[in-house]
Amino acid sequence: MFFKKGDFMVTFEEIDSYLEKGIALLDAAEQPQELYNPIRYILSIGGKRIRPKLCLLTYSLFKDTIDDAAIYPALGLEIFHEFTLIHDDIMDKSDMRRGMPTVHKKWNDNIAILSGDVMSILAYKYMAKAPVDKLPEILKLFTTTAIQICEGQQYDMNFETAPIVTIDEYMEMIGLKTAVLIACSAKMGAIAAGASTRYAEALYSFGYNLGIAFQITDDYLDTFGDPAIFGKKIGGDIVNNKKSWLNVECTRIANGEDAQNWKSICSMGADEAQAKIDAAKELYIKLGIKEKAEKEIEKYYSKALSELETLPISEEQLEQLHSYARKITFRDK
Amino acid sequence: MFFKKGDFMVTFEEIDSYLEKGIALLDAAEQPQELYNPIRYILSIGGKRIRPKLCLLTYSLFKDTIDDAAIYPALGLEIFHEFTLIHDDIMDKSDMRRGMPTVHKKWNDNIAILSGDVMSILAYKYMAKAPVDKLPEILKLFTTTAIQICEGQQYDMNFETAPIVTIDEYMEMIGLKTAVLIACSAKMGAIAAGASTRYAEALYSFGYNLGIAFQITDDYLDTFGDPAIFGKKIGGDIVNNKKSWLNVECTRIANGEDAQNWKSICSMGADEAQAKIDAAKELYIKLGIKEKAEKEIEKYYSKALSELETLPISEEQLEQLHSYARKITFRDK
Repeated sequence: MFFKKGDFMVTFEEIDSYLEKGIALLDAAEQPQELYNPIRYILSIGGKRIRPKLCLLTYSLFKDTIDDAAIYPALGLEIFHEFTLIHDDIMDKSDMRRGMPTVHKKWNDNIAILSGDVMSILAYKYMAKAPVDKLPEILKLFTTTAIQICEGQQYDMNFETAPIVTIDEYMEMIGLKTAVLIACSAKMGAIAAGASTRYAEALYSFGYNLGIAFQITDDYLDTFGDPAIFGKKIGGDIVNNKKSWLNVECTRIANGEDAQNWKSICSMGADEAQAKIDAAKELYIKLGIKEKAEKEIEKYYSKALSELETLPISEEQLEQLHSYARKITFRDK
Repeated sequence: MFFKKGDFMVTFEEIDSYLEKGIALLDAAEQPQELYNPIRYILSIGGKRIRPKLCLLTYSLFKDTIDDAAIYPALGLEIFHEFTLIHDDIMDKSDMRRGMPTVHKKWNDNIAILSGDVMSILAYKYMAKAPVDKLPEILKLFTTTAIQICEGQQYDMNFETAPIVTIDEYMEMIGLKTAVLIACSAKMGAIAAGASTRYAEALYSFGYNLGIAFQITDDYLDTFGDPAIFGKKIGGDIVNNKKSWLNVECTRIANGEDAQNWKSICSMGADEAQAKIDAAKELYIKLGIKEKAEKEIEKYYSKALSELETLPISEEQLEQLHSYARKITFRDK
């Protein structure tokens, strides 16, 4: 079924080292510092670096080395992602991220708007360093994706005031807001490496399904995560009536008394936060929504893996992709 | 001194028509409308379209037609410029632009942040449609410029709380915030047309000096414009102690009693707006700052024109550039 393309296999440690070196390059003494300090800050407080890692990983499937042709686009993906976090945090009025103050909280909204703007441009600066023969395709993929992410964020904001959000609408929203960038990252490594369209598309589908599984997991952990491990307060989505997968599914299936109960839970204020969280969790469990979410995550995770079957890669490379997909899907924080 | 390159000369009417057609293309029924309506709005309320016009004009110097190779980058320049206006208006808390409510005022800050974000990406989408052999150079020029504009906006914000701003600092700020995009626009047409580096650089310098003249004119009109023609209230810069060219120069040269007078004018509040405006204008005239500003505008305008002397263009084409430079420098609104 598989044939091994070569002996090269990049390790996760090597990927981390490439990325950290790349990010350190950004840490130049650019002026004005009011603009660049927030960029250094957001890049320094970590994150999972899923997008650039995927890009380097898929590049390594078709190349016998990791070089600038992939490292620059990978950095562009990370910078773009971090830019969206800065602006999303302003829009969502979030004060904390990764256990640290958000940029608009540590500085102010204006600084957060402008340093985000410059990061979005820096992302293109790095994309533009892709090999010139791949440049039009890489730019087209990246731009399409970037626009979709903005559309996803707008739908997410629209959901705040929407009385009803269907599962289809929810899936479209997380597809745009989260999955397309993970898909784009997996595909970009393939494009940069000169892989065929067929393989690039398979990796896009892999990333897309992985992104969906990743986002439903995010929603799941916000309610059912272990407070000791999760790193932030459990139940924030419930308190804010956030249209999470659990919320949307509950609205869809609750009937009769359960529907009444769900309605009163949703109308509970932040002053009864813990009671609201407890009541929602109980209802989610009673209606089987917790288990359903677990199955849904498993479903998209399996879909993601199945996309890899046609790739001309070694079993070791396949296992490496599986292992990474497992790590970011079945996580506890 | 000049040699005529060909019979082709684009008219301003033709340029307007190309741009309006291009902008109408953006007017598709994209979803979600919350994201795209503000884009349609800001592009529909006009503006001088200086940047795309310059791009098409300089392209026409080296080509015998106007085509997509220049029209797409020209549209990208305009969209990027309008994006910066939307975000600047949030940061400056400006309620009106071109006699209409600003985007964040008509909708809200979140909509203005996100529709600005998508415009910045759309700008790259159009840039990326440049001819593939010119793409790396065009992207490099555009990205460098876009970063400089953000830096300029940051310096402008820093100036708000800076006790003293020198003329050098002011010139650097308007260079970044305003002149580089006009310079980039003039150069981009040349690059897209395949002009030599030497001519492209001459057009960059032309645009840069024109941009400086344009911005000092902006500052000048805000104080000395004719209220009946200017279109917005005269004296806003004075009321807000904005570090305009006039303000910075006044701080630099006022001595003794004049310095005392200037200090008390600056400490006057918005409740004495008209008295503050009258007093500042009187002092500007007394110290010769009004005339100095006029000379400064003339100086950069002349510098701009002198950059055109080495270009291999017809006298008619040169006169067309002169005429456009005159129009945007010696304007009354």
